[in-house]
Amino acid sequence: MASLTSRLEHTVKPDALRAYLAELISTFLYVFAAVGSAMASRKMMPDAATDPSALVAVAVASAFAFSVAVYAAANISGGHVNPAVTFGMAVGRHISVPMAIFYWISQLVGSVLACLLLKVATHVPVHGIPQEMTGFGASILEGVMTFTMVYTVYTAGDPRHGPLGAIGPLAIGFIVGANVLASGPFTGGSMNPAYSFGSALVGGSFKNHAVYWVGPLIGAALAGILYDYVVFPVQVPGIADGLGV
Amino acid sequence: MASLTSRLEHTVKPDALRAYLAELISTFLYVFAAVGSAMASRKMMPDAATDPSALVAVAVASAFAFSVAVYAAANISGGHVNPAVTFGMAVGRHISVPMAIFYWISQLVGSVLACLLLKVATHVPVHGIPQEMTGFGASILEGVMTFTMVYTVYTAGDPRHGPLGAIGPLAIGFIVGANVLASGPFTGGSMNPAYSFGSALVGGSFKNHAVYWVGPLIGAALAGILYDYVVFPVQVPGIADGLGV
Amino acid sequence: MASLTSRLEHTVKPDALRAYLAELISTFLYVFAAVGSAMASRKMMPDAATDPSALVAVAVASAFAFSVAVYAAANISGGHVNPAVTFGMAVGRHISVPMAIFYWISQLVGSVLACLLLKVATHVPVHGIPQEMTGFGASILEGVMTFTMVYTVYTAGDPRHGPLGAIGPLAIGFIVGANVLASGPFTGGSMNPAYSFGSALVGGSFKNHAVYWVGPLIGAALAGILYDYVVFPVQVPGIADGLGV
Amino acid sequence: MASLTSRLEHTVKPDALRAYLAELISTFLYVFAAVGSAMASRKMMPDAATDPSALVAVAVASAFAFSVAVYAAANISGGHVNPAVTFGMAVGRHISVPMAIFYWISQLVGSVLACLLLKVATHVPVHGIPQEMTGFGASILEGVMTFTMVYTVYTAGDPRHGPLGAIGPLAIGFIVGANVLASGPFTGGSMNPAYSFGSALVGGSFKNHAVYWVGPLIGAALAGILYDYVVFPVQVPGIADGLGV
Repeated sequence: MASLTSRLEHTVKPDALRAYLAELISTFLYVFAAVGSAMASRKMMPDAATDPSALVAVAVASAFAFSVAVYAAANISGGHVNPAVTFGMAVGRHISVPMAIFYWISQLVGSVLACLLLKVATHVPVHGIPQEMTGFGASILEGVMTFTMVYTVYTAGDPRHGPLGAIGPLAIGFIVGANVLASGPFTGGSMNPAYSFGSALVGGSFKNHAVYWVGPLIGAALAGILYDYVVFPVQVPGIADGLGV
Repeated sequence: MASLTSRLEHTVKPDALRAYLAELISTFLYVFAAVGSAMASRKMMPDAATDPSALVAVAVASAFAFSVAVYAAANISGGHVNPAVTFGMAVGRHISVPMAIFYWISQLVGSVLACLLLKVATHVPVHGIPQEMTGFGASILEGVMTFTMVYTVYTAGDPRHGPLGAIGPLAIGFIVGANVLASGPFTGGSMNPAYSFGSALVGGSFKNHAVYWVGPLIGAALAGILYDYVVFPVQVPGIADGLGV
Repeated sequence: MASLTSRLEHTVKPDALRAYLAELISTFLYVFAAVGSAMASRKMMPDAATDPSALVAVAVASAFAFSVAVYAAANISGGHVNPAVTFGMAVGRHISVPMAIFYWISQLVGSVLACLLLKVATHVPVHGIPQEMTGFGASILEGVMTFTMVYTVYTAGDPRHGPLGAIGPLAIGFIVGANVLASGPFTGGSMNPAYSFGSALVGGSFKNHAVYWVGPLIGAALAGILYDYVVFPVQVPGIADGLGV
Repeated sequence: MASLTSRLEHTVKPDALRAYLAELISTFLYVFAAVGSAMASRKMMPDAATDPSALVAVAVASAFAFSVAVYAAANISGGHVNPAVTFGMAVGRHISVPMAIFYWISQLVGSVLACLLLKVATHVPVHGIPQEMTGFGASILEGVMTFTMVYTVYTAGDPRHGPLGAIGPLAIGFIVGANVLASGPFTGGSMNPAYSFGSALVGGSFKNHAVYWVGPLIGAALAGILYDYVVFPVQVPGIADGLGV
């Protein structure tokens, strides 16, 4: 018992509590803009699903907001803002499992709060993700996109990246935006279980919800393993001090 | 009396006067592009309110121009370019109240000049902000968006952000753009009382104007308090030398 | 005579010749993308002048390409890529008048080459700038926009900007993009006499051409004087080593 | 024989193998987003070829994804992500010919994998590039655009660029996006033989395919020669340690 307590002690230290709060606020900030922009497009044009300009609106909002969300939390929590990123970091042992669980809770709460607030303030149905594809194909797409995104997170957090480290949050936001443009009419381009969970819970539909957990978690784990063990190994744990770590 | 004079002395020193001018020019620069892009979309397509591409045009103009406005004034005035940001900084005691008042005046004058110039040069009615929502809901949305924006300003101005400080103005502009995409058809996405005041005065309609002051000022104050006292405290006043400070 | 020769000597040194070439290539790069994107929109949709998405296309192309053009030439020629910027720099004595004249020639040649190449390769009429407004109003708009743009160039080139100097070319490109969004259907958003000259010469119409010289040159001169003497003076000539200088 | 073996030895060292893998992953990441966004626009609007908003979608996806692809591979392989860039680097002797061949293979494999995956997951025909123009005109456009892009890569990788080096990958992505906006309805804006090869192979049509090799390779070689020998020479091989090198 004492051993368990001491193993969990680091999860309730002030720095850890602040990291959870930073994750909650950043996920709130991101989901508010990403889900809000989908609702705004639909409000302007009920048939938004057939207009590429609505896709551009959601993709730019996602890219900009995710850059900012990662940026704002970077030196407090590492700027995960996504349960899949936290999972990929746990697989690479850059974060302990107990802390990862608190990160997940913070991210999910932040997302739900953002969706609730949008619903209350606008009286428009929350709807973040089109669901035309089912099962296998959608999981593959979401998994591949999360792979490229978490791979980018790993490269951005690598201190060996030199001065390029300064633009890491922009790169992470840009890959999210690019992937939304590539997948919008197919899977909605989530790559983020917290985003999907919030809009599903508040929107009241968990149809195909597993797709947005299974694909992203597998993709994130593969990205972490591939980067740390094959593409650019010998990254001594603990010396990294950048994004995602 | 002497005490009052000496307390106000710092507000008329050359550096302070230059800061006011920098705020005026940057607010002019921002409002010109943000209001101008709304007028341009309307000129191209009278029914612009139902087309997501008009929303993208205004959001990108806002994101780009606010980034630049903050960037240009950053090392002269701290790059507030928004009375809500100045209010949030005053709440966190990063700027004195008398100076904050001069900042407000400079920002309002810059915004009014930009709107007047657009009106005189284009002969198109100035119209920056749709006003479909009323009162409470709109105040909440504007307040929440200003909260996330001022929170970003605080993180960008935190010297503990290391090399990420270099992209601070981009992050601040990006959150403005993302929030415009999320709220355009609902509140117009102002987050900036100066922007709303200029377009209201020159456009001749102060309908619902309080929404664009109440929400943003409360949101900004909350962001400042939360960041300085909870998320990332121990920021000794005076050592900060980045954005917004 | 000897005196004149020695005064002109610096304009034919290898470094100067390389600066002219860098200006020519960067202006070519910018005008190719800016004029090309207007031609591409028109090719896709003959009625592009009434669609905000065509405005977004041209604005994003202009923002991205001008950022890159300034970036590529920054440490060779200072990255002017615009006769108005060179004029503003000459007014502030950051470049000698004889060198400024060679910069102008290089910029004009680069722009004409880009327009010629677009015409030859696509067989589509070159048409960069709508010309609905005439004379005074258009000159004011172009002048104001060039003022904010050259003001940004001055702040970006100021070595006192610290680490923010690294994103200077992005800020300069972003203000161009934002201003295009604000002025597209009114004046076309040139802010650049070289851009206007190239498309006018190759397109075969110099109607209202003076607008694109008078406004920008006055705006650029005002920006240079205001920044150097009022907003942020005491900039000792010669110590600056950033953009535009 | 021994001599040949020793000359090829550096191409199978662990660092080299990791560089190939990084090129493969980055090219996969880029082609997935670029080709995917064209497929997504077409899925939303079958007549996407006449709507500028579809062009904006593809251009923004290309700009964001290429920035990220270059960023992620920068300090592992130099971040070429394009056979034309590798060719331009080989011409300037910044990479050996045998290694360049392995780079090409990695890039082509990455592109084919991305297109295959998109086809399998979405059941939508792969189609990256419109092919209205033929032969000479298209080769010139693609060549000129690749010239400006590789010229940007050279400037970004030049260590004399100082702090501006930090935003190099953004500049490289931005010129790709700007050129796509300028050439979309004419040639599709490839500038990248790997991108064209993948979509041609998986899409089953090699019509006009030579255009996307001849133009880009010539343009890239010219850019490398011009930069290294004329615009900014005296770059001692080996001291460069930035992008593309």
